[in-house]
Amino acid sequence: MACSCSSVPPQWRHLLSNALQANQHLKHSRYLQLATVRANGSPANRTIVFRGFVEGTDKLQFTTDSRSQKATPLPLSVKDFSKSLFRSTKSSFALRICYYFTDTWEQFRIHGLLEIIGKSETDMNKKLIREKAWFSSSSKSRMQFAGPHPGLPVVASQDDHEPELDSEQGPVDCFCVVTLEPEEVDYVHLKDNKRWVYTRSKKENEEAYFWFEIELTP
Amino acid sequence: MACSCSSVPPQWRHLLSNALQANQHLKHSRYLQLATVRANGSPANRTIVFRGFVEGTDKLQFTTDSRSQKATPLPLSVKDFSKSLFRSTKSSFALRICYYFTDTWEQFRIHGLLEIIGKSETDMNKKLIREKAWFSSSSKSRMQFAGPHPGLPVVASQDDHEPELDSEQGPVDCFCVVTLEPEEVDYVHLKDNKRWVYTRSKKENEEAYFWFEIELTP
Repeated sequence: MACSCSSVPPQWRHLLSNALQANQHLKHSRYLQLATVRANGSPANRTIVFRGFVEGTDKLQFTTDSRSQKATPLPLSVKDFSKSLFRSTKSSFALRICYYFTDTWEQFRIHGLLEIIGKSETDMNKKLIREKAWFSSSSKSRMQFAGPHPGLPVVASQDDHEPELDSEQGPVDCFCVVTLEPEEVDYVHLKDNKRWVYTRSKKENEEAYFWFEIELTP
Repeated sequence: MACSCSSVPPQWRHLLSNALQANQHLKHSRYLQLATVRANGSPANRTIVFRGFVEGTDKLQFTTDSRSQKATPLPLSVKDFSKSLFRSTKSSFALRICYYFTDTWEQFRIHGLLEIIGKSETDMNKKLIREKAWFSSSSKSRMQFAGPHPGLPVVASQDDHEPELDSEQGPVDCFCVVTLEPEEVDYVHLKDNKRWVYTRSKKENEEAYFWFEIELTP
């Protein structure tokens, strides 16, 4: 068992960076699965795209469409959205990702707390993160947010004209950034048959976080 | 919207069979992610291997180690295991898989009810399913079930001798088969930008199940 100070990047970040580099020739190396708990208590699971780390932090970044969770005629507010999508009985914002790298046989299961940065965000830094994420998205990706409401029935008369979007226009209302602040990283290297679990913790009477690591049988 | 009778294979099975065939050159085409809800209400997510369908049914089959969920010194009973792993507030046995095919860009999200077939199983047909699954596993895979308790800390003095296993010996105690009976299949074809949702249902006063299908905006 060992611990590392929060001022240096935790060991799991090195492992994740190496895995990303070793698998970068595969388009799907940025795809991972996100598990959440629905409002009715049942599990949800879907493929999302890893968009890198929030600058200067260990938070993983993703984007999502606030309309995609419930086929309601009105977009949910960010608060309702996070309530409906990411509710758990313990924490309102717990989620777990499962990130499997197909070439190197490495699995990262990361549990942590999420934050959603939507159109109502008032914090200037977070607004900036959302804008940056929007402008660094491909135009095809942006088009999806400007397209028809996801999850609604397709009707024959549906207007299938391509939506128009000015390339200089900022994020559309439904565009949200999701950040995941890891609290536990469970890493398995299937080729080497090794497993390490990294847990973020605080020492008594100290402010800074530490990462404790422990090797487990796979 | 359309429905298909239960006596013919549902449309999602054709789609899944086609995807399996089109991606079969990739070792990881049998890997998918399983989301469950933990006893404390938080989401869990992990990579598992699809082991085909239970003969004569639409149930998906997987295998798992009953010891892998809790690092307790004694193996959990199958009942406790399913309670601890697959609990949700609505149904004790709800789970959702997310199956992404990297070559054809198809995602299947399947929600349904699970059943666990463990060493205490008394139903003869189910016992047979477990035995068949054991003998069709590779020897490397079997060895894992005979190996050290997963999820326990690795200690320096740990005995790292390979476990011995007679190739004709039946399943070891911790070997379990997990079956998933789909109730909803949410299919997205990312290349074609198409989405269909298939839902299993019963008509009033009828015994047989039907699959209703609806096209949604992706």
